[in-house]
Amino acid sequence: MLTKEQYLQAQQRSARMLAQAGIVLTSAEIEKIEVADFGLGELETSGLQVVVYINNEHYCAKELVLFPRQTCPEHRHPPVEGRPGKTETFRCRWGKVWLYVAGEPSEQIQAVLPPGSKGGSETHPYYTAFQEIELNPGDQYTIPADSLHWFQAGEGGAIVSEFSSTSRDESDHFTDPRIQRATVVG
Amino acid sequence: MLTKEQYLQAQQRSARMLAQAGIVLTSAEIEKIEVADFGLGELETSGLQVVVYINNEHYCAKELVLFPRQTCPEHRHPPVEGRPGKTETFRCRWGKVWLYVAGEPSEQIQAVLPPGSKGGSETHPYYTAFQEIELNPGDQYTIPADSLHWFQAGEGGAIVSEFSSTSRDESDHFTDPRIQRATVVG
Repeated sequence: MLTKEQYLQAQQRSARMLAQAGIVLTSAEIEKIEVADFGLGELETSGLQVVVYINNEHYCAKELVLFPRQTCPEHRHPPVEGRPGKTETFRCRWGKVWLYVAGEPSEQIQAVLPPGSKGGSETHPYYTAFQEIELNPGDQYTIPADSLHWFQAGEGGAIVSEFSSTSRDESDHFTDPRIQRATVVG
Repeated sequence: MLTKEQYLQAQQRSARMLAQAGIVLTSAEIEKIEVADFGLGELETSGLQVVVYINNEHYCAKELVLFPRQTCPEHRHPPVEGRPGKTETFRCRWGKVWLYVAGEPSEQIQAVLPPGSKGGSETHPYYTAFQEIELNPGDQYTIPADSLHWFQAGEGGAIVSEFSSTSRDESDHFTDPRIQRATVVG
């Protein structure tokens, strides 16, 4: 849960980071910036700020804002109602982001796992994808549908453009069973 | 037709405008900037520079660069092989662009029609869509599939992000029958 004040502060901080990167939003768009704490109540550590430009039956485009070392927890986009899961392309616009995908794990990773990431058991950790892809401005990577991934910003935060097929965030499947995708403000 | 030198100069000019707007490209991307003169041989007047970030079977994302007062001629994206035509969202990032779509014509328009735009006959002009939409940074507009449109940058040029369904440029239908979509360099 986030307080209304936390939510508004995260929106304003995101708007400042976007402006710093030369990305112009209307004031109506700033008011609609989505702040996701994934129900974990540790926004600075596990969270994501999202500007949705367009999401129609064909395609979706967003800006993702990550505060310094903020992590978007591991998840995948499964098929929904017979339609394939979301394929998405991440393009780093500003800052640095480490993206982790399924496949051969990297020997060492640069991200710092959030506290509690090991879950309640050695056999069911909340983070399992460890193939590291470092994205700096101008770098991009396309994540196949229904494939596990998570990402964390570097020390200065990051801004990432996401181009994708239709987004159905409410159907995302997170590895951490504590996660609630919809933010509760209260 | 464009000379190799004209093509390279337009690429470099586009890269400078993108950098000025804070949009970072890799050097490989700069070398691949597409310069389209639509076969009209008047690039400064009728032309478009395009960076394709991704174009897969689901979605497409591009940056469009327009030089001052440069016009992308009127066209539509028809269905291809049983798939609906391209729906596209234009988001102005920098500068100013006037977009013209089908529908009730605006009383006055701010764009200047390219010379020769009236075609060979009063009854078959090469520009027919005159509903004006002015896009400044942060403004966006979604153009339905198979719907006629054209656009022109303001005095300082423009950078426009295009988010769309799959792009099949070679199937675009231009109102001006002289137009060849593929650029010839020689």
